[in-house]
Amino acid sequence: MSSQINYDSKRMACGPADLKALKPKLEAAKNKILQLSESGAQGWIDVVHDVKLPKIIDKACRENAKFTTCLVLGIGGSDLAARAMYKALKPANSKKRLVFAGANTDPDELAEVLDDLDWKKTIINVISKSGETIETMSAFLIAREKMEKSLGKKQAAKQIIATTSEDSGALRALCEKENYYFLPIPENIGGRFSGLTAVGLFPLAFAGINARAILKGAQEQIKLFKSQSSEKNKAALFAALQFLAYTKQKRGIQILMPYAERLREFAFWYRQLWAESLGKEKNAKGEAVNIGPTPVAALGATDQHSQIQLYTEGPDDKTVTFIEVKKFKFDLAVPKSVKSDKIFGKLAGIKLENIIHAERAATEFALQQKSRPSGTLYLKSLNATSMGELIMFFELATAISGELYGINAYDQPGVEAGKMKLKSILDI
Amino acid sequence: MSSQINYDSKRMACGPADLKALKPKLEAAKNKILQLSESGAQGWIDVVHDVKLPKIIDKACRENAKFTTCLVLGIGGSDLAARAMYKALKPANSKKRLVFAGANTDPDELAEVLDDLDWKKTIINVISKSGETIETMSAFLIAREKMEKSLGKKQAAKQIIATTSEDSGALRALCEKENYYFLPIPENIGGRFSGLTAVGLFPLAFAGINARAILKGAQEQIKLFKSQSSEKNKAALFAALQFLAYTKQKRGIQILMPYAERLREFAFWYRQLWAESLGKEKNAKGEAVNIGPTPVAALGATDQHSQIQLYTEGPDDKTVTFIEVKKFKFDLAVPKSVKSDKIFGKLAGIKLENIIHAERAATEFALQQKSRPSGTLYLKSLNATSMGELIMFFELATAISGELYGINAYDQPGVEAGKMKLKSILDI
Repeated sequence: MSSQINYDSKRMACGPADLKALKPKLEAAKNKILQLSESGAQGWIDVVHDVKLPKIIDKACRENAKFTTCLVLGIGGSDLAARAMYKALKPANSKKRLVFAGANTDPDELAEVLDDLDWKKTIINVISKSGETIETMSAFLIAREKMEKSLGKKQAAKQIIATTSEDSGALRALCEKENYYFLPIPENIGGRFSGLTAVGLFPLAFAGINARAILKGAQEQIKLFKSQSSEKNKAALFAALQFLAYTKQKRGIQILMPYAERLREFAFWYRQLWAESLGKEKNAKGEAVNIGPTPVAALGATDQHSQIQLYTEGPDDKTVTFIEVKKFKFDLAVPKSVKSDKIFGKLAGIKLENIIHAERAATEFALQQKSRPSGTLYLKSLNATSMGELIMFFELATAISGELYGINAYDQPGVEAGKMKLKSILDI
Repeated sequence: MSSQINYDSKRMACGPADLKALKPKLEAAKNKILQLSESGAQGWIDVVHDVKLPKIIDKACRENAKFTTCLVLGIGGSDLAARAMYKALKPANSKKRLVFAGANTDPDELAEVLDDLDWKKTIINVISKSGETIETMSAFLIAREKMEKSLGKKQAAKQIIATTSEDSGALRALCEKENYYFLPIPENIGGRFSGLTAVGLFPLAFAGINARAILKGAQEQIKLFKSQSSEKNKAALFAALQFLAYTKQKRGIQILMPYAERLREFAFWYRQLWAESLGKEKNAKGEAVNIGPTPVAALGATDQHSQIQLYTEGPDDKTVTFIEVKKFKFDLAVPKSVKSDKIFGKLAGIKLENIIHAERAATEFALQQKSRPSGTLYLKSLNATSMGELIMFFELATAISGELYGINAYDQPGVEAGKMKLKSILDI
């Protein structure tokens, strides 16, 4: 196979000289990432070849044959990747569906979601690496009670599948006690890098999405990363240009703006990956740096009527990365019959795909007119393979960025204070 | 009635001295806004008493009796307010529904949406003030053709309702020609301030939402704005503190983070209002300033597992405004039966409402620990009146901010370049 992704950076502000100066750091970043992977300290690269994954996918396909709905309970790294890929790849008119809950503790939302389920046809996939995530576990305990009331405890246990730490944690223990089916999250993969493990792939495969093809796409990006020099590799180039925009030009806001409704949720996945990985108080040496770009999720063409005024005329503190899908599935066009209409005749016969492509080009132009940088990721089409590529492209870019910033891209010390306080307020 | 909104600003960074110094500017801002309203230059304040609106609401209720679905076609200011309030107020288990499209030119999305409609039971509400919005009108022409194929041209015309400029424009002309029912957008109200006109209220009333109560809520906020001194008024206080954070402390990123799934879309409405109104190249004197905070839509508690790492540890360039709903509709709690469980017993009996409140408080605490400012808007509950208050609260705050920044909050010159380029690319 060959890559379905291309990255066009000609409208980014930093040029060859800046990139050349960065070359040694970029090469070092690549080596560090490969070394973290080879030593087993980080598992998110090698996992795409994990022999357990095809078995997990097969299990999902067996559940798919018996049930219609998978209630996915997770938050943050335990649900954003599946949400993004489900929105992007959901088969049209499918009888199988994913229902996401557990990403909040909103009683109104959860009550309505649970009320709508037919428990006989539903499996629960509860996802938490630590097994102690309060939002997810509260939702799970409530959902489980409803399922048990409907099916009885014994049958319910057969319809509960937990995705959690391989070795330890409260949810792992609960699986042992209650005999729930258990899917492992490898210890050396953090939540926001776990989309291509059982966390993301089990629910996606249940929904009838080709999870093996997602892995193939990810493998392709890894192959490119390993075989290309760091200056040729597009993920490395993307990371380098965002880093230069941040450090050299004070562009602290980095917007991802896909021109496709199906990629709306993908921008939210990016938002977590970029923010939690790169927003850090201390660098790897322990010095206070308070660093990190603020990722913003936008959507084209919609946000041209919402955010572009600010992006073109407001402070020059942003980068915009578009994603363009070259070929859409449907071939919708404005009816030719309006041709004789005095007012709308000019739109007759124009394909929506051409309009949305023109919208992106026009926005790129409007930004350029005001000397605002932008870049574009081109996707040949939206399919399981290209989504796998896209996920791995950004995981690699994030890891590279972490090395360039000199911070640990894999921890999240800043959320601990809030978690402790939450427990103290709730007295638990 | 009394207001259902309160604003707690004790964790914002600017204190009494800064606010005192701003007092004359704040008072001048208030007077300017009232003068713009009294002179008729701006209509978004007075519109909530417009005698046409109850008639428009009645029309929507008559359509509600005959049809089940309203296909809402609009973009930006023509759909974000209705989306936000529909998400917040949608009656549970209602047989009437709104389907939003026309906010993008994505062929895959539109094809699926249209494929799912039963035209016999559907009305189209196409919304564009200028009547020339390419995204909306393309979607409309495609949807109309499908409706006409299904129902015949004559019947289809009876099921099309256009919301557009009172006096002029291409869609207005089309209404005359094709005999479509027409709802007016007053000339002196811009798109992003038009949520409380026919633009938002017609579809909401069709969906069974109490549009009169929305207006009542908005009236309450206007009453407070007019009767209170600008230093006592909460909308003015909110605007002043955000302005001080921007100008005195370089906090260019202003996050709205409701702790309620039903307010997820509200943050997107805020995002347009804040960005398009305040992001400006030139001030009112015509001098280049390139000013404007970047609004960010977040969601609690979900984004604690996505964005809080960055907000607490990254650059100190943000303000966070929480929205807390004091009383939710549903009284969901973790089952008491888990009490004997060794691991999850501590969660037994805890109400989700209490958890989500504790989550907000914990996040406020975590930010405060790092000296990051935040504020909280408290809503007694989520209902039509409080949503009307919330909309008007932010419209007033935006108008006040515009005066404080010394810019025109009502235009959007920066989107013109892109629109022109789009037409030139499409050769129309």
